[in-house]
Amino acid sequence: MTDGASTLRRLFACAGVIRLIGAHNALGARMAARSGFDGVWSSSFELSASHAVPDAGIIALSEHLEVVRAMCRSVEIPVVADCDTGYGDSLQFAHAVRQFEAVGVAAVCVEDKRFPKINSFAPGRQELAPVEEFVSKLRAGKQAQRGTDFCIIARVEALIAGEGRDEALRRAHAYADAGADAILVHSKSPTVDELADVVLSWNRAVPLVAVPTSYYRTTAEQLAAMGIKMVIYANQGLRCALKAMEQAYAEILRSGSTAFIEERLWSMDAIFELQSDLWDERMASNVVVQGAGSES
Amino acid sequence: MTDGASTLRRLFACAGVIRLIGAHNALGARMAARSGFDGVWSSSFELSASHAVPDAGIIALSEHLEVVRAMCRSVEIPVVADCDTGYGDSLQFAHAVRQFEAVGVAAVCVEDKRFPKINSFAPGRQELAPVEEFVSKLRAGKQAQRGTDFCIIARVEALIAGEGRDEALRRAHAYADAGADAILVHSKSPTVDELADVVLSWNRAVPLVAVPTSYYRTTAEQLAAMGIKMVIYANQGLRCALKAMEQAYAEILRSGSTAFIEERLWSMDAIFELQSDLWDERMASNVVVQGAGSES
Amino acid sequence: MTDGASTLRRLFACAGVIRLIGAHNALGARMAARSGFDGVWSSSFELSASHAVPDAGIIALSEHLEVVRAMCRSVEIPVVADCDTGYGDSLQFAHAVRQFEAVGVAAVCVEDKRFPKINSFAPGRQELAPVEEFVSKLRAGKQAQRGTDFCIIARVEALIAGEGRDEALRRAHAYADAGADAILVHSKSPTVDELADVVLSWNRAVPLVAVPTSYYRTTAEQLAAMGIKMVIYANQGLRCALKAMEQAYAEILRSGSTAFIEERLWSMDAIFELQSDLWDERMASNVVVQGAGSES
Amino acid sequence: MTDGASTLRRLFACAGVIRLIGAHNALGARMAARSGFDGVWSSSFELSASHAVPDAGIIALSEHLEVVRAMCRSVEIPVVADCDTGYGDSLQFAHAVRQFEAVGVAAVCVEDKRFPKINSFAPGRQELAPVEEFVSKLRAGKQAQRGTDFCIIARVEALIAGEGRDEALRRAHAYADAGADAILVHSKSPTVDELADVVLSWNRAVPLVAVPTSYYRTTAEQLAAMGIKMVIYANQGLRCALKAMEQAYAEILRSGSTAFIEERLWSMDAIFELQSDLWDERMASNVVVQGAGSES
Repeated sequence: MTDGASTLRRLFACAGVIRLIGAHNALGARMAARSGFDGVWSSSFELSASHAVPDAGIIALSEHLEVVRAMCRSVEIPVVADCDTGYGDSLQFAHAVRQFEAVGVAAVCVEDKRFPKINSFAPGRQELAPVEEFVSKLRAGKQAQRGTDFCIIARVEALIAGEGRDEALRRAHAYADAGADAILVHSKSPTVDELADVVLSWNRAVPLVAVPTSYYRTTAEQLAAMGIKMVIYANQGLRCALKAMEQAYAEILRSGSTAFIEERLWSMDAIFELQSDLWDERMASNVVVQGAGSES
Repeated sequence: MTDGASTLRRLFACAGVIRLIGAHNALGARMAARSGFDGVWSSSFELSASHAVPDAGIIALSEHLEVVRAMCRSVEIPVVADCDTGYGDSLQFAHAVRQFEAVGVAAVCVEDKRFPKINSFAPGRQELAPVEEFVSKLRAGKQAQRGTDFCIIARVEALIAGEGRDEALRRAHAYADAGADAILVHSKSPTVDELADVVLSWNRAVPLVAVPTSYYRTTAEQLAAMGIKMVIYANQGLRCALKAMEQAYAEILRSGSTAFIEERLWSMDAIFELQSDLWDERMASNVVVQGAGSES
Repeated sequence: MTDGASTLRRLFACAGVIRLIGAHNALGARMAARSGFDGVWSSSFELSASHAVPDAGIIALSEHLEVVRAMCRSVEIPVVADCDTGYGDSLQFAHAVRQFEAVGVAAVCVEDKRFPKINSFAPGRQELAPVEEFVSKLRAGKQAQRGTDFCIIARVEALIAGEGRDEALRRAHAYADAGADAILVHSKSPTVDELADVVLSWNRAVPLVAVPTSYYRTTAEQLAAMGIKMVIYANQGLRCALKAMEQAYAEILRSGSTAFIEERLWSMDAIFELQSDLWDERMASNVVVQGAGSES
Repeated sequence: MTDGASTLRRLFACAGVIRLIGAHNALGARMAARSGFDGVWSSSFELSASHAVPDAGIIALSEHLEVVRAMCRSVEIPVVADCDTGYGDSLQFAHAVRQFEAVGVAAVCVEDKRFPKINSFAPGRQELAPVEEFVSKLRAGKQAQRGTDFCIIARVEALIAGEGRDEALRRAHAYADAGADAILVHSKSPTVDELADVVLSWNRAVPLVAVPTSYYRTTAEQLAAMGIKMVIYANQGLRCALKAMEQAYAEILRSGSTAFIEERLWSMDAIFELQSDLWDERMASNVVVQGAGSES
């Protein structure tokens, strides 16, 4: 298990924008690391989708822990756990923080909606938690962590809820003052202007985080220039995988074989390699040699 | 939960080739159903890959059960569980059969290698279990099942192990006589000839199953003409997903945004829809209406 | 897997009081069955205690499901799952109901407090959910169940919260009218009088349930005479086990051996027998014989 | 999470006999710590019994990990995981070692039988693994561990299998030479003589471990005088709990209430206390105060 928390702290301290990509299992985490991303976003949206249940607080803490545990075992880059509203109130969130930290997660992100939440991009009204209640939750979380490097990212949903720039700023300031290690200001506007309006008024030392799902034309460099320190591509991995699968499946059924899609497939060997670089070379070879010996 | 076992029995009884595609989570199962496949192959290779561990008996029965349970909850088509060598000897396999049947799986597939196995496409020698030992395991499994429809598919690894056509036939006959409901003759030859050589000598009523991973130019119709009743595309879903992710991730890091890959992505709405058709329309709408009422 | 729900329906329809005892794992369920209880109460208090975490909504649905799944696999008597406040709002409770029903649970019990709840016997104020909100939750649960026999027991916490007899009755009537299959009126009074005051004004056909933890001098027969149909001994199993362990452990450390406590211990053989009567005699013997044969 | 491995190393280095007691969940681990035992034996026999399945390799690695993870979270004393034959061959055992170490386990114990094993006290013949095969497994395990303090205890089953003193010694020496950190010589003789015969010929620096289940009249001090460094009371906790439950359940059904057994029960408060000392006082009080504040 790597020390993801200290790596993440170092990334926050260095120049440059930090780039995370979403994943919902250890293989996705390894794809993130292999491609050169700085970290993994353990996405609750991807996770609920992978279980084919609505993104509505149905996937439990224990199920999420199982996933991030495997991620932390599989990659050296930091894993950030998207933990929705924190699995309950202050007591439950404090418990969750200890669990996530214990399995090697670098940071958790918690949003200022009430449990059980619904996805920020889902239609319908979004109810925010009162500021004081969420500040209590953040403080309980910060007190619960055991190491000093572990981070709690507070996610402001005020823009999503249509509460506007001033409410977003008021909340962001309150959360930073309560000890949040970074502030994620979420927006589902098709342009970055709504977010920029908040970011340009930010005057704390606490770093800002953006999730450019809807305002996807804005580059990481443009976000960095605006004052964003971390950019999360929260769900594009799953979305491109599903499109590729849909097309391949149609082709297999149409043509009766995989002959026409073989060039769109990774080889079995590439996957074997991805699975086995978990094991350091020396150990793997020894085990194999011994295993072979013991079978003869 | 649907009665996958009786659906599978019906498919075996009807004319036409049965087509399954691999998956490793409930979402993959739903993609299979949505695309029109007849069933889902819960692939131990995909499952171990998704956990980023070698395909070598490391994923436990309890972890596999968790996955197929979610699959059976999510689709109406039959789910067939690839259970490697059966999680141990006869006693452990009998226990596994009861568990798989209880969660709604239609059939399990068990192969005639010794625990712990390694993937059939991995380099190195493959050791087969003695015929009598494997026959005992099949019998224990058939005795353990509670319903009459549940199927056990016996997978013959003789061609993979280089033991040749006669040994493959000898084993296939023995397993059919021991009560196997179908026989999967596995081959990693680049052409179908090796398999055809076995199939054309088959004279039992028990249906045959093929996995055209390496001899991918042969169509399902050609396999059916040869006497194959079920074709399993065991891992192409994962392999095309990984290739699509690899390319998209490189593009995000290169261009600094997802602008150039947006057309390769499923929309968020498409995924919301896939997640929520779990719930029948009537119930979902009632719950939402009541929920809205109770929050005001 | 037995059909616990239809057994429970039959017990509700017959004369006589139904007696359940608490458990937190499959072994406890088997002890309940072996001793002659009519059913098992899968206690969230015992379950959280077994994990050494507070009884405060920390144990997740997925963890509870794992436990009741093993219980349902191990006993023929009905298993009733104590599911606190239902794992969230209406949507989450509906999801939970489907899961519990799918694994073979006969009934769930849900209480009219807000998530996350705290144990009814813990010091401090207990906040009730508004009646209409809880009625919505019950309706969502009833709509979610697939079979007709599955029961939802509504637990009234009004006496625990100090809201008095009239509020308890008002809630009990509302829940019965919303479709609850039984009403559990909880009380932590040292005498049965508080409960009796409610029960004697009850005029619905829906059966009543009592948990005589604090008013333990009242017998099941006395409760039945008063109009109670089901009595739950919710946690005495765990409490007597812990006391026996405490005393035995002190003795082992004091005397340096188990010689003085051997008579207080079950034999290994008794436990082997309890573990293996899971397997019907015929199958177990066949498997063993075959296993023995295949090893020679 | 405590550093159990370094604590265990310190205990091995100090004078005096080390005493462990069996447990199968976090609550049992806390009872062990509370009573004054030096460590917890995470017993595979107790664990399989708690699931009501035979002690025959049915409980998976992932299920055992879940349990020891909760134990390590709950106590400061070292947790030693009884991992039977190591969940497979060398490769699987190496994987298991990494997993156990990662969750905070101090040591694992692996026995020289073949997977899947049966309980040492169960009737029937016990087949040993070839020495060289087991030595390979131990070496793979030692190479897999990441820290230096983590211990692997090799369990010699030669006396159980009726192979006699010389074979037991030959195996014990081979395992110590292969890097085992301690040697458990198992015996099911009603007297200690069989074990003593082996121990008195032991001339390595590697410490010895005994499990006085059948030769229970011999005290820890007598075993220590003979050269045993660690004594494990492997299953007495479960066995006394079951006897207490059996008697209490009979009494409840006989008398119709718990009135006559109340003095044999722990109070609810005692259990609340055991659950909540997980949380350090300061944090718990802050969370509660904040929680109270946020609800008003």
